[in-house]
Amino acid sequence: MNFPEAITAADLAAQLNAKCIGNSEIKIVGINEIHRVEDGELTFCDSSKYIKKALASKATAILVNELFEAPQGKVLLLVDKPFDVFTALSKELRGDIGCAEMVSPSAKVGEGTVLMPGVFLGKNVTIGQDCFIHPNVTIYDGCCIGNNVIIHSGTVIGADAFYYQRSPQGFKKLNSSGTVRIEDDVEIGASCTIDRGVTSETVIGKGTKIDNMVQIGHDTVIGQNCLFASQVGIAGVVTVEDDVILWGQVGVQKDLTIGKGAVVLGQSGLAKSLKGGITYFGSPVREAREKMKELALIKQLPAIIEELKR
Amino acid sequence: MNFPEAITAADLAAQLNAKCIGNSEIKIVGINEIHRVEDGELTFCDSSKYIKKALASKATAILVNELFEAPQGKVLLLVDKPFDVFTALSKELRGDIGCAEMVSPSAKVGEGTVLMPGVFLGKNVTIGQDCFIHPNVTIYDGCCIGNNVIIHSGTVIGADAFYYQRSPQGFKKLNSSGTVRIEDDVEIGASCTIDRGVTSETVIGKGTKIDNMVQIGHDTVIGQNCLFASQVGIAGVVTVEDDVILWGQVGVQKDLTIGKGAVVLGQSGLAKSLKGGITYFGSPVREAREKMKELALIKQLPAIIEELKR
Amino acid sequence: MNFPEAITAADLAAQLNAKCIGNSEIKIVGINEIHRVEDGELTFCDSSKYIKKALASKATAILVNELFEAPQGKVLLLVDKPFDVFTALSKELRGDIGCAEMVSPSAKVGEGTVLMPGVFLGKNVTIGQDCFIHPNVTIYDGCCIGNNVIIHSGTVIGADAFYYQRSPQGFKKLNSSGTVRIEDDVEIGASCTIDRGVTSETVIGKGTKIDNMVQIGHDTVIGQNCLFASQVGIAGVVTVEDDVILWGQVGVQKDLTIGKGAVVLGQSGLAKSLKGGITYFGSPVREAREKMKELALIKQLPAIIEELKR
Repeated sequence: MNFPEAITAADLAAQLNAKCIGNSEIKIVGINEIHRVEDGELTFCDSSKYIKKALASKATAILVNELFEAPQGKVLLLVDKPFDVFTALSKELRGDIGCAEMVSPSAKVGEGTVLMPGVFLGKNVTIGQDCFIHPNVTIYDGCCIGNNVIIHSGTVIGADAFYYQRSPQGFKKLNSSGTVRIEDDVEIGASCTIDRGVTSETVIGKGTKIDNMVQIGHDTVIGQNCLFASQVGIAGVVTVEDDVILWGQVGVQKDLTIGKGAVVLGQSGLAKSLKGGITYFGSPVREAREKMKELALIKQLPAIIEELKR
Repeated sequence: MNFPEAITAADLAAQLNAKCIGNSEIKIVGINEIHRVEDGELTFCDSSKYIKKALASKATAILVNELFEAPQGKVLLLVDKPFDVFTALSKELRGDIGCAEMVSPSAKVGEGTVLMPGVFLGKNVTIGQDCFIHPNVTIYDGCCIGNNVIIHSGTVIGADAFYYQRSPQGFKKLNSSGTVRIEDDVEIGASCTIDRGVTSETVIGKGTKIDNMVQIGHDTVIGQNCLFASQVGIAGVVTVEDDVILWGQVGVQKDLTIGKGAVVLGQSGLAKSLKGGITYFGSPVREAREKMKELALIKQLPAIIEELKR
Repeated sequence: MNFPEAITAADLAAQLNAKCIGNSEIKIVGINEIHRVEDGELTFCDSSKYIKKALASKATAILVNELFEAPQGKVLLLVDKPFDVFTALSKELRGDIGCAEMVSPSAKVGEGTVLMPGVFLGKNVTIGQDCFIHPNVTIYDGCCIGNNVIIHSGTVIGADAFYYQRSPQGFKKLNSSGTVRIEDDVEIGASCTIDRGVTSETVIGKGTKIDNMVQIGHDTVIGQNCLFASQVGIAGVVTVEDDVILWGQVGVQKDLTIGKGAVVLGQSGLAKSLKGGITYFGSPVREAREKMKELALIKQLPAIIEELKR
């Protein structure tokens, strides 16, 4: 993590209210913890146990709370609480503590999970461990995210189902009282929308990877290790079994099942269920092999008709 | 509205600087106003007029500013200003007061309307009553939203028209000096984009419901009680009359009219205006009945040609 | 920049702790700097050098720090520091200083560039001069934006590539260590996603204009002065040469080249490279002229077959 610009040890010491021991003109370019620290960087040591390691590290500057002689080419910055000073500096450099108030107090977030600025977590949202939620992601009330999940910016998890009843007074909205469950090891691209269930859960199965701008409707259940390319749209109440691949801009109507291992080529449109293990293409979709034959035939039509006329 | 975890009346009293009267070990799980309050919850009473009702309610704890004996199974928390304490607690629990500075001071927001965190309202935006604007919605300067409108997260209302003039120096941008008007009872899904007019208004008519990721271009006028499924894209200067249904991923070119009650099936592409009251399909679009016949015919082509050749 | 409502000079003076010289009943409608100020507006002058210009300007009110006689139809507001008062007023009116903490300290932003609220800039992002970044835009670490660039709300620049390797344990993510470079004079619509390169740059060439909800994959290089309509999706590692036009909902597979000046009509799907200077249509795409002939022929099929049968 680098400073906006390199800074002399003297200036950094002044900023941190530290006493500077050693060459105060040395330039410091950033901060790093002791296992990763490089030339030009500042690390910290708050225990005499680690001081040898710190002094032997590549660090150019070390925050310490005891007095040592600075080794050649290193500078020590003496403060009361090296860890606290280092942490504060790290927060300042990350600059991502903003908008923390966008997380509902009833949300539960696991250890190692990073929430970037602008992330909104509604009431009773739960997020597992070691997830990375990128800036400006919105997760509505009650949604449940597993471990090791990555969600990219702009994505919206848990918006209401598109579900109305026509009445003489216009459309009546049916409440979405379900939720969204995202299992472990899922990655969701930027600007996706995954709606909550009406009465049940919308599920994204373990290990499934979803590209940008993918829409997944209410109560749809996606299996494990699926791959959906950008701009795929899946309506509500669809079942997608494991290992299914949908390429870009594929559209899937509501209430269908796509069998295990099916592959659907780009821009195809599904109005009926598909058996697994087969590759499909077209709108309306057909087996890709047949569709390709049909396309070849259509190309030959002018010649065929010409000949027949003769 | 629940606390992150149930809390004893004693701990809550300490947190609120209140005097605790009654069983201080009772657990409080959340807060609720007097008409809705349930077992385990805290409510408030700031007028002797309502104290009977409060004492007779299901509330487990009551914020009061006068001394009463706590009825069996209830606890009273004595503070100077019950309403203020309750409101502060409510704000804290909602956690949605963040980013309030993202609302321009010239924006006008009607009674009963909820702006969630991360909502941006530009200059002179007006929003009617009883709307719900979900987190991270952006509404550009001057847009006008009616009553009972719901807008889901990530949606952008009022971005500039996609409108350029080619010149030897590249594309010249034409300013979008129009706006967007959204009438009463409209619901707009997550991550939609509705551009402002170039000189006039882009309009979404009363009662129309729009799913996620729908694009609506500049100066387009949508009628009442229309239904647009996810990933529909409508270009600029289109007129969509009342009661039109567009299914998923339909694309509409600029400058067309779609007649009242027309239904367009998924992935269709419109390059010309459509009469109302008819169902359409295909890209380019045709009457669905004809298109279905054509598709059936194409499927029989191999057999037909085979026979003719013989 | 206008006040929510016009305000009398007397009220404004009271609000600013200023002494009001001249007609205190004059209405002030907003603020503007000296080169742009109009009737009814307030400007400021903090140097005797500019006082003549200020007094001769169209301004109705002027913040000054020296005593002058107010000319006919003008009012002076005397304060200690006109510039500071004007700046504070401007910030208050813009209301867009919120969430400033969403900008990494290592980001560099050029003069004249406006960052609206909710904008996130990651580490080492650089943005040139005179750009306008609309609310709730996310720019990931290390992305580089040129001069005179406009990015509309909800757009995400620099999310990770959709790039996995299948393994017995599920998909392994390949790190995206590249970045995104957006050249001068580009405009990007609302809710677009432009992924970072895996090892290299994703590039948007000078003067190219992109509509809403357009997806551009990793390591794709877009030329100059291209035009992409809404909901276009371009996969990774594609080369789009200069002056290419893609209409709405066009899909482009990975690893292709689209030649200079090609035009691709709406909803077309590209699975192979295209020569420049030609208009294309269809999914799979063909030259538009051929595709149109084919469509006409298909429409005549019933009649032709009927006749042949006879």
